[in-house]
Amino acid sequence: MRKLLKGVHQFQTHYFSTHREMFEQLSQGQHPRMLFITCSDSRVDPNLITQTEPGELFIIRNVGNIIPPYGALKSGEGAAIEYAIEALGVKHIIVCGHSHCGAIKGLLQLGNLTEQMPLVYDWLKYAEATRRIIKEHYKDYEGEALLNAAIEENVLTQLENLRTYPAVHSKLYSRELDLHAWVYKIETGGVFVYSAERCSIQSKHDLDESDEREEPAPTHYSVNSNGKTYV
Amino acid sequence: MRKLLKGVHQFQTHYFSTHREMFEQLSQGQHPRMLFITCSDSRVDPNLITQTEPGELFIIRNVGNIIPPYGALKSGEGAAIEYAIEALGVKHIIVCGHSHCGAIKGLLQLGNLTEQMPLVYDWLKYAEATRRIIKEHYKDYEGEALLNAAIEENVLTQLENLRTYPAVHSKLYSRELDLHAWVYKIETGGVFVYSAERCSIQSKHDLDESDEREEPAPTHYSVNSNGKTYV
Amino acid sequence: MRKLLKGVHQFQTHYFSTHREMFEQLSQGQHPRMLFITCSDSRVDPNLITQTEPGELFIIRNVGNIIPPYGALKSGEGAAIEYAIEALGVKHIIVCGHSHCGAIKGLLQLGNLTEQMPLVYDWLKYAEATRRIIKEHYKDYEGEALLNAAIEENVLTQLENLRTYPAVHSKLYSRELDLHAWVYKIETGGVFVYSAERCSIQSKHDLDESDEREEPAPTHYSVNSNGKTYV
Amino acid sequence: MRKLLKGVHQFQTHYFSTHREMFEQLSQGQHPRMLFITCSDSRVDPNLITQTEPGELFIIRNVGNIIPPYGALKSGEGAAIEYAIEALGVKHIIVCGHSHCGAIKGLLQLGNLTEQMPLVYDWLKYAEATRRIIKEHYKDYEGEALLNAAIEENVLTQLENLRTYPAVHSKLYSRELDLHAWVYKIETGGVFVYSAERCSIQSKHDLDESDEREEPAPTHYSVNSNGKTYV
Amino acid sequence: MRKLLKGVHQFQTHYFSTHREMFEQLSQGQHPRMLFITCSDSRVDPNLITQTEPGELFIIRNVGNIIPPYGALKSGEGAAIEYAIEALGVKHIIVCGHSHCGAIKGLLQLGNLTEQMPLVYDWLKYAEATRRIIKEHYKDYEGEALLNAAIEENVLTQLENLRTYPAVHSKLYSRELDLHAWVYKIETGGVFVYSAERCSIQSKHDLDESDEREEPAPTHYSVNSNGKTYV
Amino acid sequence: MRKLLKGVHQFQTHYFSTHREMFEQLSQGQHPRMLFITCSDSRVDPNLITQTEPGELFIIRNVGNIIPPYGALKSGEGAAIEYAIEALGVKHIIVCGHSHCGAIKGLLQLGNLTEQMPLVYDWLKYAEATRRIIKEHYKDYEGEALLNAAIEENVLTQLENLRTYPAVHSKLYSRELDLHAWVYKIETGGVFVYSAERCSIQSKHDLDESDEREEPAPTHYSVNSNGKTYV
Repeated sequence: MRKLLKGVHQFQTHYFSTHREMFEQLSQGQHPRMLFITCSDSRVDPNLITQTEPGELFIIRNVGNIIPPYGALKSGEGAAIEYAIEALGVKHIIVCGHSHCGAIKGLLQLGNLTEQMPLVYDWLKYAEATRRIIKEHYKDYEGEALLNAAIEENVLTQLENLRTYPAVHSKLYSRELDLHAWVYKIETGGVFVYSAERCSIQSKHDLDESDEREEPAPTHYSVNSNGKTYV
Repeated sequence: MRKLLKGVHQFQTHYFSTHREMFEQLSQGQHPRMLFITCSDSRVDPNLITQTEPGELFIIRNVGNIIPPYGALKSGEGAAIEYAIEALGVKHIIVCGHSHCGAIKGLLQLGNLTEQMPLVYDWLKYAEATRRIIKEHYKDYEGEALLNAAIEENVLTQLENLRTYPAVHSKLYSRELDLHAWVYKIETGGVFVYSAERCSIQSKHDLDESDEREEPAPTHYSVNSNGKTYV
Repeated sequence: MRKLLKGVHQFQTHYFSTHREMFEQLSQGQHPRMLFITCSDSRVDPNLITQTEPGELFIIRNVGNIIPPYGALKSGEGAAIEYAIEALGVKHIIVCGHSHCGAIKGLLQLGNLTEQMPLVYDWLKYAEATRRIIKEHYKDYEGEALLNAAIEENVLTQLENLRTYPAVHSKLYSRELDLHAWVYKIETGGVFVYSAERCSIQSKHDLDESDEREEPAPTHYSVNSNGKTYV
Repeated sequence: MRKLLKGVHQFQTHYFSTHREMFEQLSQGQHPRMLFITCSDSRVDPNLITQTEPGELFIIRNVGNIIPPYGALKSGEGAAIEYAIEALGVKHIIVCGHSHCGAIKGLLQLGNLTEQMPLVYDWLKYAEATRRIIKEHYKDYEGEALLNAAIEENVLTQLENLRTYPAVHSKLYSRELDLHAWVYKIETGGVFVYSAERCSIQSKHDLDESDEREEPAPTHYSVNSNGKTYV
Repeated sequence: MRKLLKGVHQFQTHYFSTHREMFEQLSQGQHPRMLFITCSDSRVDPNLITQTEPGELFIIRNVGNIIPPYGALKSGEGAAIEYAIEALGVKHIIVCGHSHCGAIKGLLQLGNLTEQMPLVYDWLKYAEATRRIIKEHYKDYEGEALLNAAIEENVLTQLENLRTYPAVHSKLYSRELDLHAWVYKIETGGVFVYSAERCSIQSKHDLDESDEREEPAPTHYSVNSNGKTYV
Repeated sequence: MRKLLKGVHQFQTHYFSTHREMFEQLSQGQHPRMLFITCSDSRVDPNLITQTEPGELFIIRNVGNIIPPYGALKSGEGAAIEYAIEALGVKHIIVCGHSHCGAIKGLLQLGNLTEQMPLVYDWLKYAEATRRIIKEHYKDYEGEALLNAAIEENVLTQLENLRTYPAVHSKLYSRELDLHAWVYKIETGGVFVYSAERCSIQSKHDLDESDEREEPAPTHYSVNSNGKTYV
C-alpha cells in the first residue's frame, strides 16, 4: 500500500500538475466516444494500449471480458452498456480479449473450478457458447493454439450477447453504433481487430475457409508492432 | 476508431518497444498484489492515478464501483473478487469512488431512471444502503456537498458488501487481507483514503487473543495534491 | 368440454383409424427436422399452415413467440431449444409471428399491463428490444402499420436472442442450422418469410432503403395466397 | 424448408380459400374457451386430436408440458396462463401429457443430462415432485410401466403448480374455471382424462355454503379409440 | 437488552434447573412431529398457544406465514420444509395465521409499500393469490371483516403453495403427511382450524382404489375459548 | 394433532383466561423492541429462554438462523428485517445460534446433501462464509469442538450479512440499532453473548466527530447457567 500511496503522490506532483487544465475541464463532464470492455487482468491497461487520455474511454472490466445477455437481471455490465449508450451516446463498443487469459484457461477445464472457485465457475456460464464451439469444432487443437482459438471465439461470443441489449439493438438498427472485437497479445503488443459490425457470427477460422464464397467476409485487421494494418 | 488504431500503433512503436522485456515476462503470468475496484467513468484511470505499471493492479470497473453482496447469483464482480483472492492471492482490495460520479447523481434522483435507464436503475439497488443513509442522515445537505457525501458513503457501503464474500470473510479473519475505501477528486488530483480494514469480523476465538492489543481505531488518511498524508 | 371430448372421439374414429400405421411408427420415436416457435394465439395452427403431419414439427408456443436470451435460468424455451438441437438434431428453427398479435399490442402500451397482467408485463421484457426500436425508429407510424412493424421487428429480435444459446451458436458456426423469421397474416393466409440466417439485424424497413448499397440484402420472400414466392 | 414452403402454398390454395370467411372473422379477435398445455413433441397435434379449428384452443407447448409454480419470475408459462384467464376468459385449462415422452424419460435418468443438456436438466426441476413420487412410491415398476406412471403423475403434479397462480386460484374459488389432466396415447389415439377440478381451495366461506352439497368425488374418465367414456 | 439478559438468568435459575433432565435428553437429538409455520408477529407464541414444550414443534416464522411455491430458489422456507420432512419425518404441517396481522394489512393496501418497505412489498407477492381472491370475491367486505377474510384466505393460499414442494407432494400421495390451516385470534385466544388435508393430489392409481370409500369432506373445526371443538 | 388441540384448549382455559387483559391490549398493536432471529430447531424456544411474554420479541425462525445478504430477491428474512426496523422501530437484533445445530452439521458435510436435501443444500450457501473460515482456519478442530466453532462463527457471519440491508445500515450509522450474536447451549441452558454492534460502518463524517472518543472495544459477555455475566 505504501508504494501505491507514493504513486498517488507522484501522480499529483508530476502528471496532474502538468495537466491541471485538462482535469478541471473533465470535472465539468465526460464525453467519451467509446465503451471499452476488457478483462480484469492486471497486464491489460486499455488507456496505455490505445494511448488515450482520461475522458476518452468508458470502461467495463471483469473476468474474461464477458457480457451476460440481456435478461440476466441487475448485472453491472448491462447498466454500463445502457449508461454508455443512453447517457453518454458512445458510438463504438470494443470487446477486447487478451492472450494468456486465465478466465478462458478456466473455461477450457471448467470442472476443476466447481469446488475451488464456484463464483468464477458460475460466471463462465456466460461464455458457455465459446466453450461449446471449441469443444465441437476445434477438436484437433491443443495447448496454446487451443487457448488462442478460445480467446478469439470468446470476443465474438460476447458480441452476440451485446446485441441482445435493447439499447444496442436499437442503435445498430439505425447504424449509430459499431461493435468491435479485439484481441490484445501481451507478448507482442499486437492487437488483432475483427470488424463484425455488419454480420453476426463469423470466426476468423471460418473466414479463412470462405475465400471462394461470394459472401462478403467481415474484415479482419491486425495492427502489429511495426504498425501495419492489414486484412 | 481511426484515432484509437493510431494510438495502438503509437503504443507499439514507443511504449512497447522500450518495455519489451517487461511484457515478455508478464506473458508468463500475473502477480498483482491489489484488487482495484473503480467506476467505468472515462475520467478515472487507475494505473495513471497510482502510477502503476501493467501487472500491478487487478481491476474491476463498473457503474458506480458497486459490489453486489454475495448471493446475487453469477455476478461478474463476485467472480473477480474470488479470482483475485483464490487464484492470485491479492492482499489489498481498494474500492475507489470519484467526484462528479454520474451513477451516484442518478442514485440521488432514482425515480427519473425507471423509464430512461431501467438497467442502471436496477443496478443501483446495490447502492440502496447509501441512498438510505443520505436520505435519513444528510437532510441538511444539498448540491455538491450532498453528492460528495453520497460518493463517500457509497465506498463504505460497498466495503460492507465486500465482507459478505466467503473468500473475503475468511482472509479478513486471518488478517491476510486489507480493505480500503478511496475517493478520487478529478479536479484536484487528490485521493481521500479511509482505512476500514480492522473493523469487521471478530470471533470469540479472536477476541480472546486480543486482550493485550490496544484496539486500533479506524484511521483516516488524506493524500492531497501537495502530497501530505495525514489522519 | 363435451365438444372437446366429442372431438377426441371423432379423431379416433376417423383420422386415427385411417392413419394407424403412421401413429404406430411414430410411437417408436420422433425425427422432426424443424423447431417451430410461434404464439399461443388460438388462431395460429402451425401444422395446418404448413400442411405438416404429426412428427414433422417440434413446437414451442408461448405469448408473443418470445425467446428469452440464454442466461435467464430454467426457461422452458431454453430447454426446448437445447432438446431440439442436441437430442433431435433439427436443422431449422422458425420463429413465426402473426398479424393481430395481442402480446405485441400489449408491448406497445406496456404501462397498462402492470396492474392488470403483471406476469405478461414481466414476460414482455424479453421483447424490450423490439419496443425500443419501434419507439425510436418508427415515430411516424401508427395504428395497424405500427402494430405490423412491431410484429415484424419482434421476430427479428427473437432471432438475436436465439443466437445466444450455446447449442445454436455452435451449430450456426458449422452451418448445420438455419434460422428463419416468419410472419403469418391471419386474414390473407399469407406468410412473409425473412431469411436471416447469414446476418444479424436487418429489418425489412431497413432493407428497403438499402437498394443502392453493395451490402447484400437478406432475402425477403413472401408466400401469399396465390402461391407466388418472390423476393 | 422447400417442403414447408410448399405446404404453406398448399394451405393457401386449399384450406384457406375454402375457409376465407372464418379467417376474416378470426382476424377481428380470438375467443377461445380453453387453454391447452401440451408437450413440444412433434407427434402431438392438439388441434388434430381434438378436431378443433383455428380460434378454439389457446396453446402452450414446452418440453414435458410443465408449469413452473407461480413465483419463478418471468416465465412464459405464467404469462400465457394470466393472459388466457384475464384477457381471454378461458373456462378450462387442460394439461395434456403423452406416451413415449422424451422429457419424462429424461426425468427418470436425470443425472445423465447435467453435461449433455444442462438447460433441460434445469427445466425438469419443475417436475421434481413427479420424480420424487415415482422414486418413493413406484419402486416395483420398471420399463414402460414406470414411464407411463411418471407421465400420468406428471400431469397431476403440473395441476398442483397451476393452482399457485393468483388468476387460477381466484377463478377456482368462484368455480369459473376447471382444470383437467389428460394423457394422450400416440399408439392408440386414446386419451385418458382425469377431472381434478373440484378438489382445490376450500375457504371457510366456501365451506359454510357447502353443507347441503354432496361432495363431488373427483371423476375419472377415459376416452379410448372405440369412443366410450367411462369412469 | 438488560431485561433480556435478566430473563436468560431467570430461565436458567428456574425453568432450566427444574427441567435439566429434559434438556439433557434433548441435546441428544430432536424428534418433533409437527412443522408449525407462523408469523414473526411478537404477539404469537406457538409453544404457549399449544402448550408444547421444547422438542415438540419445528418452527418457521416469517412475515405473514408465507410459503413461496417450490422453485423460488434458495428460500429458507423451502429448506425448512425439506428438512422437517426428510430429516425429521414430521407428520403434520400447520400454517397458522393470526388476527390483526400487519402483513395482511399491508397486502390490502399494497401500493403504499413500494417506497417505504420495498422488501416487504416484494415478499407479499407470494400472497398475491390471497389478494386476488379478496379483490375479486369480497367486494362487499370492509374494515375488520375484510382483514379477517384475507387472513383466513391466506392460510389456504399458503397450503396450496406448500403442495408444490416435492417432499410434501410425495408424502401427501402416501398419506403420511397432513396439512392444516389455522387462524389464531389474539383477542379471544380462539383458534380456528381448517382441515384441508384430503383434497390434494389424486392419481389414477389412487382413484382406482377409492371406489368404495365415501369421499371425506374437508372438515372444518373451530376451537374457541370455551374449549369446544365443532364442525 | 389431538394433543395439540388439547394444548390449545388448555392454553385458553388457563393462561389466556388469567392474561385476558394483556391479550386485549396486544390486539390493539405490537411494540416489540427486539428482532430475535433463531433456528427452526424444536428445542429452541426464544420466549422461554428469555422469559419474555407475547408482544416482546419479533421473531424470524429458519434453518440455521441464516440471513441471506441484501440483494437475494424476495427473501422472507429481508422482509422481516425491514418490517421490524421500519414499521416497528426495533432497537436490537439478536442472531441466536444453538448447540447441536443440524443445519451447521450439514454445512460441515455439505456434499451429502445435494441428492438427499437439495433445498437445504442451496440454502446453506448463505452460510458459505462460515464454512470457508472453518475449512481454512480450524484445521486442527474435530468432532464437537469443530461443530461448536462453526456454530459460533456462523452467528458472526450472519451479522455481516445483516449489515448489508439498507435499513440496518442506516440505523447503525445513527447508532439507533444494536446487533447481537448469541449462542444458546441446550444442555446447560447457557447463553454466550457477543456484542459486535460498534464495529460496522464508519463514514468520514462519523470519524471527524470521533476524535475524542475512546474507541469502544467489541465486548464479549457470557451468561452461563450460574447466571454470571462477564466480559
